[in-house]
Amino acid sequence: MSFLNNRYSHVKPYVPGEQPDDREYIKLNTNESPYEPSEMARKYAEEEIAKSRLYQDPENPLLAEKVAGYYHVNKNQVIITNGSDEALYLIFTGFFTGEKTLLFPNITYGFYKVYADFCGIRYHEVPLRDDFTVNIGDYTKGNANVIIANPNAPTGICLEFSEIEKMLKADKNSLVVIDEAYVDFGGTSSIELLGDYDNLIVVQTFSKSRQLAGARVGFAISSEKNIRDLKRIKYSINPYNVSRVSEAMARGALEDKEYFDKMIQNIKETRTLFTSSLRKTGFFVLDSSTNFVFTRHADIKGKALYALLRDRGFLVRHFDTELLIDFIRISIGKREDMMQLADEIAGIVKEAGRI
Amino acid sequence: MSFLNNRYSHVKPYVPGEQPDDREYIKLNTNESPYEPSEMARKYAEEEIAKSRLYQDPENPLLAEKVAGYYHVNKNQVIITNGSDEALYLIFTGFFTGEKTLLFPNITYGFYKVYADFCGIRYHEVPLRDDFTVNIGDYTKGNANVIIANPNAPTGICLEFSEIEKMLKADKNSLVVIDEAYVDFGGTSSIELLGDYDNLIVVQTFSKSRQLAGARVGFAISSEKNIRDLKRIKYSINPYNVSRVSEAMARGALEDKEYFDKMIQNIKETRTLFTSSLRKTGFFVLDSSTNFVFTRHADIKGKALYALLRDRGFLVRHFDTELLIDFIRISIGKREDMMQLADEIAGIVKEAGRI
Repeated sequence: MSFLNNRYSHVKPYVPGEQPDDREYIKLNTNESPYEPSEMARKYAEEEIAKSRLYQDPENPLLAEKVAGYYHVNKNQVIITNGSDEALYLIFTGFFTGEKTLLFPNITYGFYKVYADFCGIRYHEVPLRDDFTVNIGDYTKGNANVIIANPNAPTGICLEFSEIEKMLKADKNSLVVIDEAYVDFGGTSSIELLGDYDNLIVVQTFSKSRQLAGARVGFAISSEKNIRDLKRIKYSINPYNVSRVSEAMARGALEDKEYFDKMIQNIKETRTLFTSSLRKTGFFVLDSSTNFVFTRHADIKGKALYALLRDRGFLVRHFDTELLIDFIRISIGKREDMMQLADEIAGIVKEAGRI
Repeated sequence: MSFLNNRYSHVKPYVPGEQPDDREYIKLNTNESPYEPSEMARKYAEEEIAKSRLYQDPENPLLAEKVAGYYHVNKNQVIITNGSDEALYLIFTGFFTGEKTLLFPNITYGFYKVYADFCGIRYHEVPLRDDFTVNIGDYTKGNANVIIANPNAPTGICLEFSEIEKMLKADKNSLVVIDEAYVDFGGTSSIELLGDYDNLIVVQTFSKSRQLAGARVGFAISSEKNIRDLKRIKYSINPYNVSRVSEAMARGALEDKEYFDKMIQNIKETRTLFTSSLRKTGFFVLDSSTNFVFTRHADIKGKALYALLRDRGFLVRHFDTELLIDFIRISIGKREDMMQLADEIAGIVKEAGRI
């Protein structure tokens, strides 16, 4: 006997990266930061624990103000969410369930398709070019909503600022959602376009560049009207969506600009070294503007390389979809770990070439 | 220009209790615990902070096992959620959106109506009896899903165990959801009926009896099949729904049985004293099995009493709906605060009677 509404029978839920506990791994499969949350984030969290008996103000006013100040927008243009995934769900269920088709790339964050299927949204997956870049012309024909991850995942490639603006200009009655989960590692945020375009929603997260994947804090920034509407949805689903300690940690992470800059710098430097090392070993590596690289080698399939690395204590991500089957995605960890990984990979490839 | 799907235009979002910061209040308006989280909960939280760079395993295996052990069920019968509100949303959107009518009392947790409207569910609000009790006969006619808060809010009245079973027996093809947010303060949990009834889902929370309203942890327990289905929904919306620190705190709260028992005992004793004091002052007070009392006085309207208490630094809850307009709901706080409140109320009523 099943009580589940059968309209969900076709939905394939999102499959998060694995979290095995059979041994210690160097975990490079879910794009977490290899660095601990900043000292200020940890201090604020400690101070907040005892207050956990009380509900948080569901407007999260302190954090919303801090985010608004950081990005030079009004605090009524900000909604704080339980990770950026929740922001995306609020947008999909609130804004994309109408008549319009939704466009997104055929290679991108896998959750867009899950949300669209789950919410019953008509969508079209637009093929990337052969070089894995987005062809903006595909998104500027009007009368369609758009969601784009910028930089894109798992490719790591970012769009020019001017290209985002082309999409916004093309049809001001259609929404353009820019998912900037990885923007701090190399892209340009579209937040400054908000003054000119009411049809823009920018989504960000504290999970990647701010070391807080386990705290579950994200946000969306848009016009006051759009944010009011997103709050209507939030207050119809789960008003108290962010925990007190997480809210406090996120404030600390945002205040500690020095630590943030230093950690970003570390990731970028390690990414350059690691990319160059992979290329020397014969890998094709896309230029990454994120905290991961997307790569393949002619001599070894993604899944095989994934399995061999897993045996050696390195956890990376491979994909079972046909378009991505040759690739693996490797998060950028600490420099010493990545150099060790580069050596292991070189050894594996040498072996594979010999067979 | 509005981008919001107009199917939500009729939805009235839930209005959470106010969280004013204009002065210090003794906060008795949202049924939080007046006591801090247990020492063990705080210790586990402190230890988890630094790990917040990593995603939590979205299955929350440690907490799920602990909950399962506590309630003598299988861990596959448990889903951990972001407060019980999220569990309710998963149930409403996953199980109640089909053809069947949903029944719930006309006086109950206000969010049921919000979820039903938001999800487009056909529902019927069944009037309580004049004495504010649930008439089980209204829910045993078959071919309808049911959600009941037991004990009910804001009345505080609980149902007999045998009455829950009547609903379950009436139609095994319809779901009965028992929302046990307040059960630890006096009701009997229906969890032990799960062995016999696959059409039962029990929802609980760490917010009230376990001092963790600000941590956002709840759970649902049901058959393995129903929990699998709820996880399908969760993995289509927000897999990483609970923060690492919150998960750790909840584990600590569940382990610290001694503290839990003592705090429950405190609330019950204070409730008895406070209820008796209100009755002496001429109040009608429903017998509460929860951590709040629901009460009215012939000489003063709920809103007026609420406002006078607010001026005196006590925050309680009043309701604007016609059925509840005479009442206020007062959370049970620390004994000394409640005795002081009882004195203030006695003074206000004396004054009101004189006018």
